[in-house]
Amino acid sequence: MNAPAQAAAVTRAAFEHAAPREVRRAIREGAWSANTKRFALGHHQANVTIVPERHAFDFMRFCMRNPKALPLLDVTDPGDPVPRHAAPDGDVRTDCGEYCVLREGRLVERVRDLHALWRDDHVAFFTGCNLSLDRAMLEAGIPLPHLVDEQAFPGQFRASIACRPAGVFRGPLVVSLRPIRDDLLVPVIELTSRYALCHGAPVHVGDPAAIGIADLAKVDWGRPNTIPAGHTPVFWACGITAQAAALACGIPEIITHAPGRMFVTDLVVTPSH
Amino acid sequence: MNAPAQAAAVTRAAFEHAAPREVRRAIREGAWSANTKRFALGHHQANVTIVPERHAFDFMRFCMRNPKALPLLDVTDPGDPVPRHAAPDGDVRTDCGEYCVLREGRLVERVRDLHALWRDDHVAFFTGCNLSLDRAMLEAGIPLPHLVDEQAFPGQFRASIACRPAGVFRGPLVVSLRPIRDDLLVPVIELTSRYALCHGAPVHVGDPAAIGIADLAKVDWGRPNTIPAGHTPVFWACGITAQAAALACGIPEIITHAPGRMFVTDLVVTPSH
Repeated sequence: MNAPAQAAAVTRAAFEHAAPREVRRAIREGAWSANTKRFALGHHQANVTIVPERHAFDFMRFCMRNPKALPLLDVTDPGDPVPRHAAPDGDVRTDCGEYCVLREGRLVERVRDLHALWRDDHVAFFTGCNLSLDRAMLEAGIPLPHLVDEQAFPGQFRASIACRPAGVFRGPLVVSLRPIRDDLLVPVIELTSRYALCHGAPVHVGDPAAIGIADLAKVDWGRPNTIPAGHTPVFWACGITAQAAALACGIPEIITHAPGRMFVTDLVVTPSH
Repeated sequence: MNAPAQAAAVTRAAFEHAAPREVRRAIREGAWSANTKRFALGHHQANVTIVPERHAFDFMRFCMRNPKALPLLDVTDPGDPVPRHAAPDGDVRTDCGEYCVLREGRLVERVRDLHALWRDDHVAFFTGCNLSLDRAMLEAGIPLPHLVDEQAFPGQFRASIACRPAGVFRGPLVVSLRPIRDDLLVPVIELTSRYALCHGAPVHVGDPAAIGIADLAKVDWGRPNTIPAGHTPVFWACGITAQAAALACGIPEIITHAPGRMFVTDLVVTPSH
């Protein structure tokens, strides 16, 4: 392991039990810009999608109609960079490690903060994320690769499942793959089903071809996972669905967090029962 | 009891176990226009709020920020009178027994259907309702007055609790009063807490003055309830909060269902645990 990676690993461990506002401050001040897995365990980490006000009602209906992919945690007023419910002292322009700018259906740049791009008509949507479940997974003894391996990260794929459209927004459901040990399939499905705001139960278990995924090595986002012997591929709805819709609809501009660089909120993750 | 009231009572009993689409058809065809209490038991009955598209994103955030009063069940596309999720063969223009038209902060008329008023930029919001809990209440043996008395109906009051504003929408939380027998307080609170889409747990138990209600005889909507000996007044957030916001914000036009004349959806009421 080279020195910078080691330094990063030390810092990552420090954030595991940090308060959400400490994570946000570190990111805002430039002390951290990589992924946020295992950060501020037990709090909701959010996907961020920023659209102009003229597309905001369409996007909010798109979230409501596709709640497994885009469970709504907070929505800002136009021009307000603060998620008043999810993180009253946060700032959506600075508190993700990196952002993607998509224009007319193409990813055109990745930027470190949004001060130069933020406008008075921008609306920010915060939607739930699988990483928010890391504490529940750890406590239940579920050995997910990304929980134990610094480099591992789920792969994401466009599935052959269409989202329910709303206004200009349409596109495929994006799913994230986690290989689950066969004897843990039922406990994992049972556990995740209790967390609707973290994508809930899987959308598919087993043969990837059944949801239009021909080759697990060809991820659309993230890194390929191998499926070890005695494991089954399990697919959850994924917040990157918003980026796929942005690419599909080709509106002039959408800004999102960069995959894995989530906005860490103050909201505590709680099961439904 | 006079003859028309008796005829209505017979018809009401017939709707108790009717399918939601039968209730909607009867209302659409003019066979019923009074309140829908105990209708299609076990299905969500919805408050309806119709706003022009230019105010729809504000109103959707207002619902999201005040989820106990306005839990979202469905939102239509602009100009589409069909709630595609909640009632795919329904029509918001005809399937409530009566509608209120509020213009610039005043109730200006009540109409039987909306064909003459419906516009291409109209958006309809469907939000949860206490009446949706009638089956769960009956099964739990909770003797609410409106469940046993044809004439009884909860009273509703403007509370001294402000809603979280969103855009043009602001106003007081409206609460509905139900007198609960003291030995049933815990079971009723426990039961209702499981139904977030039906307003969830009460917002207040006991002294009405604590939430700004000086006189239980002076209702803002509905009819006064008496509080029998050995009962406690219990207050739940109420969907009429949308009408109070419409009156407070004074936008050019909002259309709602008339109180008690709910839109009966196909959605099945389920507890969270």
